[in-house]
Amino acid sequence: MFDNETLSLLKNHRSVRKYTDQPIAQPIMDQILEAGMRGSNTGNMQIYSVVVTRDAQRKKELAQFHFNQPMVSSAAAVITVCIDINRWNKWCRQRNADPGYDNLLWLLTGTVDATIVSQNICIAAEAAGLGICYLGTVLYNAPEIAQYLNLPKGVVPVTTITMGYPAENPQQSDRLPLGGIVHYEQYNDPAPEQIDQIFSEKENLPQTKELIKQNGTENLAQIFTTKRYTKADNIVISDKLDKYLRDSGFLK
Amino acid sequence: MFDNETLSLLKNHRSVRKYTDQPIAQPIMDQILEAGMRGSNTGNMQIYSVVVTRDAQRKKELAQFHFNQPMVSSAAAVITVCIDINRWNKWCRQRNADPGYDNLLWLLTGTVDATIVSQNICIAAEAAGLGICYLGTVLYNAPEIAQYLNLPKGVVPVTTITMGYPAENPQQSDRLPLGGIVHYEQYNDPAPEQIDQIFSEKENLPQTKELIKQNGTENLAQIFTTKRYTKADNIVISDKLDKYLRDSGFLK
Repeated sequence: MFDNETLSLLKNHRSVRKYTDQPIAQPIMDQILEAGMRGSNTGNMQIYSVVVTRDAQRKKELAQFHFNQPMVSSAAAVITVCIDINRWNKWCRQRNADPGYDNLLWLLTGTVDATIVSQNICIAAEAAGLGICYLGTVLYNAPEIAQYLNLPKGVVPVTTITMGYPAENPQQSDRLPLGGIVHYEQYNDPAPEQIDQIFSEKENLPQTKELIKQNGTENLAQIFTTKRYTKADNIVISDKLDKYLRDSGFLK
Repeated sequence: MFDNETLSLLKNHRSVRKYTDQPIAQPIMDQILEAGMRGSNTGNMQIYSVVVTRDAQRKKELAQFHFNQPMVSSAAAVITVCIDINRWNKWCRQRNADPGYDNLLWLLTGTVDATIVSQNICIAAEAAGLGICYLGTVLYNAPEIAQYLNLPKGVVPVTTITMGYPAENPQQSDRLPLGGIVHYEQYNDPAPEQIDQIFSEKENLPQTKELIKQNGTENLAQIFTTKRYTKADNIVISDKLDKYLRDSGFLK
């Protein structure tokens, strides 16, 4: 067994969506961003960029592309982490080298590398007493966000983090049992009764039952498929993302 | 300013590729994996799975798909982190709900979520005194790795981490200056002289000069484009990945 400050920090994570109006001092922001960049990355190429939005007016404008979720305007900083092959390509071309990174392999490689930066930023921020929340909506309106942040071709936003000093102390969210997620040696494709078992605790939480009542669905799964992330919406957003990633050169 | 154990851990990261033969005790492994799952994830759907390879023979076999990099066989554990919509889809269908997550939006969402798990696992492992190394090669041979680990449709490997007690203490690798990566309010598209400036320190490192001599190229950029990650290779691997992700249902 081991137990230390870092393990506790990881295990105590909860997303924080309400912030005080205290700004983040620049030396603290610099430490957080430096820690972000120390994560592993492919070939030490650092094919990512980080765009920090702090201006009050610009936070409000950016919030529009995140469905006006209130944490965007109220956060001390909104951090958009992007794949960036623009800087790398420019460097290559200035050095008489012919880059070939505008393709699917580097879309996924860049998404992984940018997310490692993002998660390091989040952990460093929490270590500084800040609260963070990821916004999946960055992928819904990636082309609009790219235009708003002045991202050139080859720079694609993949995660957005809101960050600020916490004005709430939310309950920790549930997780599926480890045995449902972790497989030793080979993937164990769950049989129907194993699926029931894996999701049983989640389905029986009082807040789940409350949620089902509010949504008027038969069960929790239907809240996801008919309300939160419907197939129809997913297809529309995927088509939009597909077009954007073709224009960006990553998909052909 | 702030300074604490977690910040130091993040800022002192280096990839460790040589390991002692000490195994990782199960309670420590459990803590690491639990910490991995505590990271933020989209809708708390946990659309990821973690496959742990510890058996000596299976590590050797898995190493083949990672170009026989020696850290795969010598690691105490090789952890393949996957997007997993298979478990989620099965649950939805058992609950009379129609899932729609086999598309581009959820390929990228799943890649982000799986990478957050991966990075939390790495940080927890380092907090336990272990060393880790990411293997980008997982994307090169994703279909072969999927078959070897018995991954069904809807389960796609996105990162691989080797992990063990360190038998080396490598030098920390360089990073580009923060100013080259971080943009405030709007992306600052670097002019040619800014590109020179951003890459100057890296290009002038003694180890860079040594590497250029060994590779017989004009400069560092050409090592990447003509030796390490060539356009021709990137296209071949992207085509393979494209076919695999179509078969997996994530790309159409």
